[in-house]
Amino acid sequence: MNYQKLWKNAEKIIPGGNSLLSKRPKRFLQNGKWPTYYKKAKGIYLWTLDNRKLIDFSIMGIGTAILGYSNSKIDYKVKKAIDNGINTTLNCLEEYDLAKEILKHNKFADQVKFAKGGGEAMSVAIRIARSNSKKHKIIFSGYHGWHDWYISANLSNSKNLNNHLLRNLKPLGVPSTLKNSIIPLRFNDHRQLLKLFNKNKDANILVIEGARNDYPSKKFVESINNLQKRKKIILIIDEITSGWRECLGGIYSKFNLKPDIVVYGKAIGNGYPISAIVGKKKIMSKSNQTFLSSTAWTERIGFVAALETIKFMKKNKVPLIIKKRGVKIIEGWKLIAKRHQLKIKTNNFYSMPTFNFDYSKKSEILHTLFTEYMLNKGYISTNYMFVSYAHTNDAIDKYLKICDQVFKKIKKDLKEKKILRNMISRKMTY
Amino acid sequence: MNYQKLWKNAEKIIPGGNSLLSKRPKRFLQNGKWPTYYKKAKGIYLWTLDNRKLIDFSIMGIGTAILGYSNSKIDYKVKKAIDNGINTTLNCLEEYDLAKEILKHNKFADQVKFAKGGGEAMSVAIRIARSNSKKHKIIFSGYHGWHDWYISANLSNSKNLNNHLLRNLKPLGVPSTLKNSIIPLRFNDHRQLLKLFNKNKDANILVIEGARNDYPSKKFVESINNLQKRKKIILIIDEITSGWRECLGGIYSKFNLKPDIVVYGKAIGNGYPISAIVGKKKIMSKSNQTFLSSTAWTERIGFVAALETIKFMKKNKVPLIIKKRGVKIIEGWKLIAKRHQLKIKTNNFYSMPTFNFDYSKKSEILHTLFTEYMLNKGYISTNYMFVSYAHTNDAIDKYLKICDQVFKKIKKDLKEKKILRNMISRKMTY
Repeated sequence: MNYQKLWKNAEKIIPGGNSLLSKRPKRFLQNGKWPTYYKKAKGIYLWTLDNRKLIDFSIMGIGTAILGYSNSKIDYKVKKAIDNGINTTLNCLEEYDLAKEILKHNKFADQVKFAKGGGEAMSVAIRIARSNSKKHKIIFSGYHGWHDWYISANLSNSKNLNNHLLRNLKPLGVPSTLKNSIIPLRFNDHRQLLKLFNKNKDANILVIEGARNDYPSKKFVESINNLQKRKKIILIIDEITSGWRECLGGIYSKFNLKPDIVVYGKAIGNGYPISAIVGKKKIMSKSNQTFLSSTAWTERIGFVAALETIKFMKKNKVPLIIKKRGVKIIEGWKLIAKRHQLKIKTNNFYSMPTFNFDYSKKSEILHTLFTEYMLNKGYISTNYMFVSYAHTNDAIDKYLKICDQVFKKIKKDLKEKKILRNMISRKMTY
Repeated sequence: MNYQKLWKNAEKIIPGGNSLLSKRPKRFLQNGKWPTYYKKAKGIYLWTLDNRKLIDFSIMGIGTAILGYSNSKIDYKVKKAIDNGINTTLNCLEEYDLAKEILKHNKFADQVKFAKGGGEAMSVAIRIARSNSKKHKIIFSGYHGWHDWYISANLSNSKNLNNHLLRNLKPLGVPSTLKNSIIPLRFNDHRQLLKLFNKNKDANILVIEGARNDYPSKKFVESINNLQKRKKIILIIDEITSGWRECLGGIYSKFNLKPDIVVYGKAIGNGYPISAIVGKKKIMSKSNQTFLSSTAWTERIGFVAALETIKFMKKNKVPLIIKKRGVKIIEGWKLIAKRHQLKIKTNNFYSMPTFNFDYSKKSEILHTLFTEYMLNKGYISTNYMFVSYAHTNDAIDKYLKICDQVFKKIKKDLKEKKILRNMISRKMTY
């Protein structure tokens, strides 16, 4: 099947071709050979439209499929809920049950609100935080979605968001009156943190991610703790990507962080849309004095899926296992790179292993080469991944064997400069 | 089961008790007897936690269950999609298929973007509209969700939103810099429309609902048409509630309205969260120059459900039938009211029949009495409803017979003032 043609047709009627940047083919390969669409998915396996079976060692639905695709335990409960009706005039009890369950894993918190998407939930969290103080300015680090409050960061300087996951985000259509309402902070830069709060007296809200490439450093945590004591700032921790991967609940709990609000999404529903805003009663109760309400938020599947996913995680010690397997993958990459004398750097948030070729301007090309060669071997793979419970030790061993072959080939390519030039021209012309 | 106690417990850990205002028990009954939770739903039937079977002649999941609860055709396709994986690293083809299908029913449009919730989709539409013009101010009529762009209407005057569905919405936590960015307009007031655009030279966006209580009047439509010719304003029609009920696509198409963007939600997925932003290429393509992206938006179920719901609607002429049955209900109410000499007013958007007792201050109490008496007879019912395909002629006949008994009782109550006082005191003490 001509995936490239199909995608180009989709781009004609859907701006961008689909609803998520991270699933666009050019993010992985620029030569038009990315399979782009799937028909079926199970565990870590994907079947393309023309029935090619691929193994996913990449983003696993952007971290949503934490138990693997189509987990039969979760899906069974969801299908039962479907048979019993998913959206009616009355409420489903699972909304209440899920709130209770989530609170068990967030000792600091008393109340929960739900939404469906991650960016949407962050927007709810910001509204609630701003309901608690007349100081509406935000100091932030990390990626937090598409909404105005966040994208407005690029109104004053188009590069403000560049070091927070996605580069060159354009704030077109965001009200210019939001300019300077949100100030970027480098993750783990405790000096900048203090400086920014000293300078911006109208800032009362701090938004960080639980973890992205790195865990929060001790100094960073201490500085936040102190700031909270001195200034009564509201701390929001976005655990949409980092939550439930290395412990039940947020990674914040491992680092002495004392949030007022924590936000979950992605993994919590194993692919079914559900997000949660979890916080202290004092802060959360203000949401009764503003307006936060949406029909889609009361749909039953998200609650049912999250309840069953958390149950499965607890029973099978999923976070512990995922972290271990992340370490195994990172150590595997390091060993292979050493064997082939390839320079790579790896991250330390183990459940989302990342390596970067360390060849300055050539690095990006090498990542693309890696993806292309892995695809030829039947793997969906790039230089970062989300580990799932379905990535068994056996699957990892096999994957690392293929990585070994591919790293060897890349080392050879590095010597034969012709091939690299070829790659560059292909990237340019697509 | 003590529903009231269960609900009070939910309110302790979920601000407001649930995620949607319209599903809160006090919206229906103030005496603590509202069943609040369901266990099972099929067609127009609901089973409460203690297995009481009720018949829904009210809001049918706030208009989401347009085919009735748990429609087996839709659910079969959804369950098949679940077995094949619902959220992976690759894209599902149904996103593209649904875009194609929706465009068939929106001849003015070239492109589609998707989200999950209605309010969320309106927020996307506003971003896209604002991406097309430096004039960011909005003139609006109707209800459009919880986001900042909309709720900011109440920053300059706390009553601005009062006549647009929900009263007393508080803008707490909405940035004060958004003050005066959005100006309310009375639906069908063509004089005010022109006046507002003349006065607000920085307004370039008009947002209306397709229909709520009334269809758009001829004069209103003509004035909008003229305004579009003269001023190149961008017209967004919110069809989240009104769409697909009386025709395939938006009710706008029946009234010579010429939108730039139309937004769908609710009914389009028969309860499964899916929303769509549909527009002209010239307008929509700007969304590639701003950032709109969310993991939840790419989940498969919404697309599959909407494709199958539209197919079912087409095959079974659902909108035609729903409109007819709405007329039957409204005519039924009128007849019964006349028989018992009760003064009521009815609306003219037939697929969402509404009656209002016309007894000035007493009217609200009478609506509550109606709901209470109907519940005693096994009906979930209030003074407005969303007709679904599952409301058969037979079911409507039976319902109207019960309405007849209840209207008779209310007439009697009106004479015996004691009972009304009793109602009032119950309302006050809950």
